[in-house]
Amino acid sequence: MPELRKDPIISRWVIISTERGKRPHDFVVEPEVTKGGFCPFCPGNEHTTPPEIMAYRPAGQPANSPGWTVRVVSNKFPALVIEGELDRRGEGMYDLMNGIGAHEVIIENPNHQATLSTLTIPQFADVLYAYRDRIRDLSRDPRFRYILIFKNSGRAAGASLEHSHSQLIGLPIVPELVQEELSGSLMHYRLKERCVFCDMIRQELQQGVRVVLENELFVAICPFAPRSPFEIWILPKKHHSSYIDMLDKEYLKLAELFSPVLRRLDVALNRAPYNFILHTAPVRETHMEHYHWHFEIMPKLTLMAGFEWGSGFFINPTPPEDAARYLREVQLEEAAPPAGESTT
Amino acid sequence: MPELRKDPIISRWVIISTERGKRPHDFVVEPEVTKGGFCPFCPGNEHTTPPEIMAYRPAGQPANSPGWTVRVVSNKFPALVIEGELDRRGEGMYDLMNGIGAHEVIIENPNHQATLSTLTIPQFADVLYAYRDRIRDLSRDPRFRYILIFKNSGRAAGASLEHSHSQLIGLPIVPELVQEELSGSLMHYRLKERCVFCDMIRQELQQGVRVVLENELFVAICPFAPRSPFEIWILPKKHHSSYIDMLDKEYLKLAELFSPVLRRLDVALNRAPYNFILHTAPVRETHMEHYHWHFEIMPKLTLMAGFEWGSGFFINPTPPEDAARYLREVQLEEAAPPAGESTT
Repeated sequence: MPELRKDPIISRWVIISTERGKRPHDFVVEPEVTKGGFCPFCPGNEHTTPPEIMAYRPAGQPANSPGWTVRVVSNKFPALVIEGELDRRGEGMYDLMNGIGAHEVIIENPNHQATLSTLTIPQFADVLYAYRDRIRDLSRDPRFRYILIFKNSGRAAGASLEHSHSQLIGLPIVPELVQEELSGSLMHYRLKERCVFCDMIRQELQQGVRVVLENELFVAICPFAPRSPFEIWILPKKHHSSYIDMLDKEYLKLAELFSPVLRRLDVALNRAPYNFILHTAPVRETHMEHYHWHFEIMPKLTLMAGFEWGSGFFINPTPPEDAARYLREVQLEEAAPPAGESTT
Repeated sequence: MPELRKDPIISRWVIISTERGKRPHDFVVEPEVTKGGFCPFCPGNEHTTPPEIMAYRPAGQPANSPGWTVRVVSNKFPALVIEGELDRRGEGMYDLMNGIGAHEVIIENPNHQATLSTLTIPQFADVLYAYRDRIRDLSRDPRFRYILIFKNSGRAAGASLEHSHSQLIGLPIVPELVQEELSGSLMHYRLKERCVFCDMIRQELQQGVRVVLENELFVAICPFAPRSPFEIWILPKKHHSSYIDMLDKEYLKLAELFSPVLRRLDVALNRAPYNFILHTAPVRETHMEHYHWHFEIMPKLTLMAGFEWGSGFFINPTPPEDAARYLREVQLEEAAPPAGESTT
């Protein structure tokens, strides 16, 4: 049984895999992902993954068979286990509990060659709906306090399988960085009776220099104090504390912004690996006045992460104003008329 | 002029290099360090670095010439600049100040082939004295609130030059993680009137399972809730809030523990890259009852740092009890009798 353990000084929780602990020789450089080899996420291989938890597929088709557009399964090597009791306890001065939680994989598309950025808008929106549906479902489990959605794209960002996928971890605790956002934004709210994210969006739209892209409902910015070069946040313009509270058509609008942001990143940074993380309110918190959900996208361009997560101190060689300008100036191929039309 | 900018939500400061901002094509994979090529840190090449700030060398020898045992110079590509005023200011809702600070390189030994773990104990102690002397000196500058000492060992940990060195950054702010330690340990002190680190050391020495090595004055442990596999903390057994307040002979005792800890890591993890960071009290804070200085060593074994520093949530595949046991069981070559003696 994995364990959730709390640091006694700064109260940060970590997951410790106590069952199949990695020994020193397990850390030798892992082999590259086999390109073109067997892929458990491809249609036809459904029996090689754990049984599906949810899939979007035409009505009447059987589960765990091809025909799906998005498919969600348990992670075959889960960091947390779903069955059991939390059993919160102490060990002298230390606090720990059983590593109970959900660890799921969201297979974004049946096409092995596709990436999020090459999906059509309706396909991209399906991935965003899947995030929502899984958070809604897991929110009913009283053991969970937070559902973390994230994506590792590219080997250097932590992806171990090539077929495009996102991940979900359901947790009995709220991750440290979300806790800090909640308390920081609450402090601002108490001072000003305004959401700090709403204030930020207003200033960014006025100044314009850090805006990457916007539509009626969403805006993508390079934040004022980014930890990493080309870090991008995508936020709803209207105040919303929880990702799962939007109307269906709003997720489609989100896809319409998210997709070209990723395509611009792909072009500007030559398809660099990246991580993104959905920051949303803890489960069962509805309509928090001070919190504002958003995505944080972090391209993996620099090597210093070890020192930086050891000190909490970041050195960023690219001003966000420059990054936003590069991303705005990217010429997407789709902007040009198709060859067939331009010659008529 | 670089800038220090504060995130408006969680109040984290970052350094933004506004002068020579990296553009997208600057992030193409950097070439490997040339082995055997020209090294600016080697004796005889002193004129190729910025002038030395401090060096340990026999009395009477001129500065910036060979003969030194430890040498400290300004970083040729500093993240912060030493000349100027802080000029704290706002930009709408955002806070920033000029990127004033010190960025120094501590060249640990004249020998290009040496690493910290291959130095003799007196040589290692010289490096520890150099840390102390630089912190003491920079503490006199009223613009600085924190002096951060760290080491990136190996390319994957962020080292761009092969010749063994540490770095120092003098800051007008206290890094986020140190602030969290200060407030977390203060809360413990208010509740119990005891230092949380002292409590932890007491429990660790009693339980023994996470102790890697100890001597009369220092102990090396794998912490109860480590973020990374084989993370190690080295702490003074006696309560001390600041690294710079020890007696000379205590630094020698520290070297006597630190050196075999690094050698054991080298053997267990096949010389894996690592980072270490000195956590000490902010400058001009003397004898804090609640804080306890220590080193945190983090081997660079896993790839997930991007997601992890984006969420503040860590998954560690190696229990610290296992890591400590592997490290205790490492057979150091020096433990065996020299070949010449064993056959007599």
